[in-house]
Amino acid sequence: MDNKDISQAVISRLPRYHRYLGELKDNNVERISSQELSVLMKVTASQIRQDFNNFGGFGQQGYGYNVEYLYDEIGRILGMDHTHNLILIGAGNLGQALANYMNFARRGFVFKGIFDIDESVIGKNVSDMVVMPMSELEDFVRKNDIDIAVLTIPKTGAPEVAERLSRIGISGIWNFAHVDLNVPDNVQVENVHLSDSLMKLSYNINRYQEENN
Amino acid sequence: MDNKDISQAVISRLPRYHRYLGELKDNNVERISSQELSVLMKVTASQIRQDFNNFGGFGQQGYGYNVEYLYDEIGRILGMDHTHNLILIGAGNLGQALANYMNFARRGFVFKGIFDIDESVIGKNVSDMVVMPMSELEDFVRKNDIDIAVLTIPKTGAPEVAERLSRIGISGIWNFAHVDLNVPDNVQVENVHLSDSLMKLSYNINRYQEENN
Repeated sequence: MDNKDISQAVISRLPRYHRYLGELKDNNVERISSQELSVLMKVTASQIRQDFNNFGGFGQQGYGYNVEYLYDEIGRILGMDHTHNLILIGAGNLGQALANYMNFARRGFVFKGIFDIDESVIGKNVSDMVVMPMSELEDFVRKNDIDIAVLTIPKTGAPEVAERLSRIGISGIWNFAHVDLNVPDNVQVENVHLSDSLMKLSYNINRYQEENN
Repeated sequence: MDNKDISQAVISRLPRYHRYLGELKDNNVERISSQELSVLMKVTASQIRQDFNNFGGFGQQGYGYNVEYLYDEIGRILGMDHTHNLILIGAGNLGQALANYMNFARRGFVFKGIFDIDESVIGKNVSDMVVMPMSELEDFVRKNDIDIAVLTIPKTGAPEVAERLSRIGISGIWNFAHVDLNVPDNVQVENVHLSDSLMKLSYNINRYQEENN
């Protein structure tokens, strides 16, 4: 299947479909129509059908989609059918929170190592891993088949670390540093800019108040 | 100004403009054209002009935008011209990481109180605040002019807490719980679904590998 032309907006919606289908599956629902899914997820049924048509439509028939099949297919598209090996760079509060969050492991995202530049943190235990110095980064990534690096470091250090990771052929960077990274095409970057999200909330609060006061 | 029809996609891009303009300002750049900004931010100049036209265009002239004016205006639109009072609900790892992140305070988002249901956490100090029991929630929100609640609790408890917050008229919920919240129109919700973001990264890695192997 050629996914080249599927927009990032569609991709952004896939994890949410996956989440709702997982809950339906857990509740032993076997089939669901786009109309029922539409009510549940508060999006239009036509949006759902359009999104699914990007992937061949998942064989909806008169009586709707097979929940388990749809869940597995979307999971496969999202790369959830195999394990991902992660390293964490930056063992601060946020890094530790992510390393300790067990739901990632349940979804097949497994932390294999943690790195930091801070001498007072190196050698300490975080989530059953010993924090390593950055000098061991390249060696560890190669030997442990790491495909994703999670960056929870200040923005000043992030570009250089991203460059080192790119040079050793990391597949993806999950970037919490508040800076846009320039990496080659073979490195995928997903940004989580928390301040941006908070500002968007602030905008929506402001707008509501301006319109209703 | 009537912002009613501005799409959330445009709003999502405003914090990034704000970030780049802040950096330009720090580097004493006084004016910038949409073309120059376009190269810096890797979006098209026409996208920038279209986005800005939603807000009246910010008075670009032949020689470009006034950086400080543009920075201040976008900041004002994002509600950064006044302080927001926040509470944190859920004093776990992620909650503590957010409470300790000083950059939020610098942008005018100030944590005033922390709540948890866990008896072993209540009364302890987190980021210079004493963790309070949930029974004090309503009283604290009213007395301290709280407008934003940050939810870093498991998804099972989130809907009930969101309902309590809605009832006392909170303006916004920054939701890290992995569930969609149903709240009235006067409560703005901004979701940070970390697993969804990680799945999107996983999809993009997968797609790249399928296309290039």
